[in-house]
Amino acid sequence: MTVRVGVIGTGSIGSDHVRRLSSEVDGSTVTALYDIDIERASSIATSVGAVAFDGPIDVIKSSLVDAVLIATPGETHAELTRACIEIGKPVFCEKPLAPTTEECLDILKAEMAFGSRLVQVGFMRRYDRAYQSMKKAIDDNDIGDVLLLHCLHRNVSSPSTYTSSMPFTDSVIHEIDTSRWLVGEELVAATVVGVKKSSYAPEHLLDPQLVLLECASGIVIDVEVFVNCQYGYDVRCEVVGELGVVSLDPPQSTATMMTRDHAGGVPPDWKVRFGDAYLVELQDWIDGLGQGVVAGPSSWDGYCATAVSQCCVRSLGSGHRETVDLIDRPAFYI
Amino acid sequence: MTVRVGVIGTGSIGSDHVRRLSSEVDGSTVTALYDIDIERASSIATSVGAVAFDGPIDVIKSSLVDAVLIATPGETHAELTRACIEIGKPVFCEKPLAPTTEECLDILKAEMAFGSRLVQVGFMRRYDRAYQSMKKAIDDNDIGDVLLLHCLHRNVSSPSTYTSSMPFTDSVIHEIDTSRWLVGEELVAATVVGVKKSSYAPEHLLDPQLVLLECASGIVIDVEVFVNCQYGYDVRCEVVGELGVVSLDPPQSTATMMTRDHAGGVPPDWKVRFGDAYLVELQDWIDGLGQGVVAGPSSWDGYCATAVSQCCVRSLGSGHRETVDLIDRPAFYI
Amino acid sequence: MTVRVGVIGTGSIGSDHVRRLSSEVDGSTVTALYDIDIERASSIATSVGAVAFDGPIDVIKSSLVDAVLIATPGETHAELTRACIEIGKPVFCEKPLAPTTEECLDILKAEMAFGSRLVQVGFMRRYDRAYQSMKKAIDDNDIGDVLLLHCLHRNVSSPSTYTSSMPFTDSVIHEIDTSRWLVGEELVAATVVGVKKSSYAPEHLLDPQLVLLECASGIVIDVEVFVNCQYGYDVRCEVVGELGVVSLDPPQSTATMMTRDHAGGVPPDWKVRFGDAYLVELQDWIDGLGQGVVAGPSSWDGYCATAVSQCCVRSLGSGHRETVDLIDRPAFYI
Amino acid sequence: MTVRVGVIGTGSIGSDHVRRLSSEVDGSTVTALYDIDIERASSIATSVGAVAFDGPIDVIKSSLVDAVLIATPGETHAELTRACIEIGKPVFCEKPLAPTTEECLDILKAEMAFGSRLVQVGFMRRYDRAYQSMKKAIDDNDIGDVLLLHCLHRNVSSPSTYTSSMPFTDSVIHEIDTSRWLVGEELVAATVVGVKKSSYAPEHLLDPQLVLLECASGIVIDVEVFVNCQYGYDVRCEVVGELGVVSLDPPQSTATMMTRDHAGGVPPDWKVRFGDAYLVELQDWIDGLGQGVVAGPSSWDGYCATAVSQCCVRSLGSGHRETVDLIDRPAFYI
Repeated sequence: MTVRVGVIGTGSIGSDHVRRLSSEVDGSTVTALYDIDIERASSIATSVGAVAFDGPIDVIKSSLVDAVLIATPGETHAELTRACIEIGKPVFCEKPLAPTTEECLDILKAEMAFGSRLVQVGFMRRYDRAYQSMKKAIDDNDIGDVLLLHCLHRNVSSPSTYTSSMPFTDSVIHEIDTSRWLVGEELVAATVVGVKKSSYAPEHLLDPQLVLLECASGIVIDVEVFVNCQYGYDVRCEVVGELGVVSLDPPQSTATMMTRDHAGGVPPDWKVRFGDAYLVELQDWIDGLGQGVVAGPSSWDGYCATAVSQCCVRSLGSGHRETVDLIDRPAFYI
Repeated sequence: MTVRVGVIGTGSIGSDHVRRLSSEVDGSTVTALYDIDIERASSIATSVGAVAFDGPIDVIKSSLVDAVLIATPGETHAELTRACIEIGKPVFCEKPLAPTTEECLDILKAEMAFGSRLVQVGFMRRYDRAYQSMKKAIDDNDIGDVLLLHCLHRNVSSPSTYTSSMPFTDSVIHEIDTSRWLVGEELVAATVVGVKKSSYAPEHLLDPQLVLLECASGIVIDVEVFVNCQYGYDVRCEVVGELGVVSLDPPQSTATMMTRDHAGGVPPDWKVRFGDAYLVELQDWIDGLGQGVVAGPSSWDGYCATAVSQCCVRSLGSGHRETVDLIDRPAFYI
Repeated sequence: MTVRVGVIGTGSIGSDHVRRLSSEVDGSTVTALYDIDIERASSIATSVGAVAFDGPIDVIKSSLVDAVLIATPGETHAELTRACIEIGKPVFCEKPLAPTTEECLDILKAEMAFGSRLVQVGFMRRYDRAYQSMKKAIDDNDIGDVLLLHCLHRNVSSPSTYTSSMPFTDSVIHEIDTSRWLVGEELVAATVVGVKKSSYAPEHLLDPQLVLLECASGIVIDVEVFVNCQYGYDVRCEVVGELGVVSLDPPQSTATMMTRDHAGGVPPDWKVRFGDAYLVELQDWIDGLGQGVVAGPSSWDGYCATAVSQCCVRSLGSGHRETVDLIDRPAFYI
Repeated sequence: MTVRVGVIGTGSIGSDHVRRLSSEVDGSTVTALYDIDIERASSIATSVGAVAFDGPIDVIKSSLVDAVLIATPGETHAELTRACIEIGKPVFCEKPLAPTTEECLDILKAEMAFGSRLVQVGFMRRYDRAYQSMKKAIDDNDIGDVLLLHCLHRNVSSPSTYTSSMPFTDSVIHEIDTSRWLVGEELVAATVVGVKKSSYAPEHLLDPQLVLLECASGIVIDVEVFVNCQYGYDVRCEVVGELGVVSLDPPQSTATMMTRDHAGGVPPDWKVRFGDAYLVELQDWIDGLGQGVVAGPSSWDGYCATAVSQCCVRSLGSGHRETVDLIDRPAFYI
């Protein structure tokens, strides 16, 4: 059985997903797509033998489409995801599930009303081999109880539209999700710490920033986010346990070169760093759909991540520690 | 278009290929298979919805089969590959193309007689990201002219059937192919050097061994092959150029653990080390077939690798430097 | 000219210093020593040809002694250091200069009254080659303005007498000094963050702990201190600048071993990690004395480190951010 | 007791040794020196309070001199070393002990006639911490019996006077000595293998070169020597045992920098790489002299190293494997 996917949003990440689903993932094909840039959508549709529709809802409703992938700006995620749930189609929604917890809760309710999972959120790091090695080491109790996580998230430079809350809603949301997943606990508080500003960051942008996240058990996660670090895309994570530590290996190429002018290095961006993870993520999604199962990061995960990132934004505003206010986890999501 | 593949030989590597072609590679399905162990073949056939045939030629001739993958013992490769060529079906043959240069030459002749490429040889390292990084560095002239290669090829332990020439025909054949590919030249001589024997190797087996391979331009490739190294699967390669060096990064996991008793490490075997490369290799093969093209390692590559590995075996016997005797490269293979 | 040193306190670090000064440092000899354990002092004195005195003041006043090294418990540092200043003898005092800022200020006053520098504080990390590489990279502006420091300080296990404030007064005091030295600014505030307790730490001990230190310019230094980490002595530091980062290389042996059971590693303790630094530190001190100069970490540095570590202890008690209250830097120490 | 050293030859390495002996090594002073460049000798003598003599023999005979260090060109080593032995003064001779085995044997005879060891040869790598870690791992049987060594010896560029035999007599002689020392066996044969020439090497110079050294037990040592590698001073060694391997860690700085243009790296030359080893070597020599003992690399070691390097030169000339012809080891040197 081939899963026929409709893709909404064919910008940078959306067009990559189209390519993966049509020519790299086994068992899927892209049959329909939509983008606000009609020419782009049309051109991509032609190249993969899909139909370009006039609107996103048309894609969702199309009889050509078994499952939907949403890669539009975050503001549109809630409405489109709910439209998929309404007609009972599985939907893969890029992060964030929605920018507000209210919208996320609406999605939870709709999905629970439908009665089985339809939604997967695009937290692709869970599919990265290095993160999976760390997860396995923790689950195998190789390092004993987890006490602390140290995380870094650095990008070369930020787009001009980037605001001081976006490091939390766009970047740290990945650390939020991987931390929850690695330690198996919810995050309950966040404190954003002001740091000396880089003169290479735009004038309006606080960059770098440091945030401390807390679990109820006392586990603390510190995250440096620095979106104008100049030198490369550098994501690191060290998990400190009672008996040892486990870390992502330092960034490196697969081959080391030594010459006078050049040495191996840091990947330039997340497309390079997490390219494999994206592919594994989509293959896993498609494989599950083939068996009628949605098993990846859930709406609940999407809701929690949004709640914590919003908590970071509140702490950024207040200058104080802020607590995360989550609803009780519905049995549906356990 | 889905390429319907018939797989001959479903042992360790063959069954992995069946899994990849049926559930990981986009655009392919396994429709037919054969193995000398009929029960194994039948069980695997059931699991992927293929037909288990009574003989390998039946697979090749089946109307269910567009292309053939051969993963049987090397002695059978030539006959099966030629059977594919005779009826004009593309064939992916695991290394070696054939154990003797005579058989390889017969395949070359048959393929040339057919008039276009049908054969791809399973030198999967060319599809490994680290080797590709090295190839790119060389081709981009980052290290200047290549002068030397230092290679290691180590396995934890060897099967009891392993003889002293098999390190060359089964293991070093990979270094032979990657060296030819990396430097873009043929190898013209080989000298096997006796080394102190490990007491952990079987009594009949010379292990480790060292071989020096030479190109006409003077490039020298030294290869240590050690198939009972005890500690892990360790493949390394450093290319020395006039202006710098490029190397495979040292073996490591994707995450580093520090505890009192444990530290990160070396992969246990080639399935772990080159798992990704196998997948990329097969996807590339299938993608090419979809466009009517066979572009991977050719019969010529298979012939040259066999010729050089046989030269190593001769040197092992004579104790001296032996030269490789290649036919002129047919225009068909340029 | 040979500098004749009197050593007060010949416990673990003191006896190492005796060995260094008598047989590794060029230009020095140990002529006198004292320890509360009279037999130990006597035995060490015999081995190096020194005289064991009955009291520390006797060592200071002895005509055999040109300069004094203090390696007694911290509580005695102020009194002994002042006794040296009173009779105008150069004194090398192990960290801390004194446990309280009041005592440190008394030393500053006495030294200023004397009119030239006599005191050097044993912040040996400044003499470590790796820290010096980082310092040079910062001073050469290789990474642009410094924005953040991430530090780790881990020990295998703590003595039973260790209390929850000692990670700051005994361990983090090194990070306090190196941070001040690396960035060339004073630290103005500290916030200790509670972290989940390791079950391998003694019941009364908060371990690990996390502390955030701040400079007036906005530079933030986060320090994890974990004195029961079980696996090794692991000190790390990454300095984040506007244009790049510079880090201590990860802990490693000088040789890597790969076997089934064993791999290279982390040093077991600070004696191994900073052994070279101690030697360079003492040689530098002796060289300076030979020229009538005391140029290493000063009483001012000792005072500031104590002030910041006390601020950490206050924050540990209050649970809040606390500010450091320093006197203006006297011109004498600029 | 202070050992008063006379230094003959104050070029690059000789003047470094003067500095070490006069201001870094404990227990030594430089009292006399000679150099063919009289002004240089005179200037250095003034700076360390030594006397500059008119000839090397005057230094050796001077009543100011307890022990002699020879850092002149290799051709003069034998005569000067024998002059020291004649009057019974300990002598530290930089490598090679002498350029020919005949001269080395004359030294052995003279020293044996004297009746106790006087000569130490400057094989400083034995004092390098990384080599010592490897030696300890081998001696502790961590990797089982040794089977193979892979060595690299690379310099940025060679002086114009460098000839094709000098890589063996000047550079590989270090690998010869460390190999003998690491495995505890003599080398019995050498085969130089021609390699494609770097266009960055002078026209008259074969560079790089590859040499295979053999022990009677079958251990093989391959050494790449490349004295115009352009990118740095890169010395590597991996010892392959039955149960695992032990290697020098890859070259690196003590701190890693990541910026767009720059990354950590390879030391520029041997002075940086082995600076610590030289100091430990001289301190060890002086410490031994203080106790009337000469325990470092012996005349026998110097003789063997010269014999093997000469064997390499013969193989370079003949194009074949050549055997090393050693006298039986005198009991004096066991």
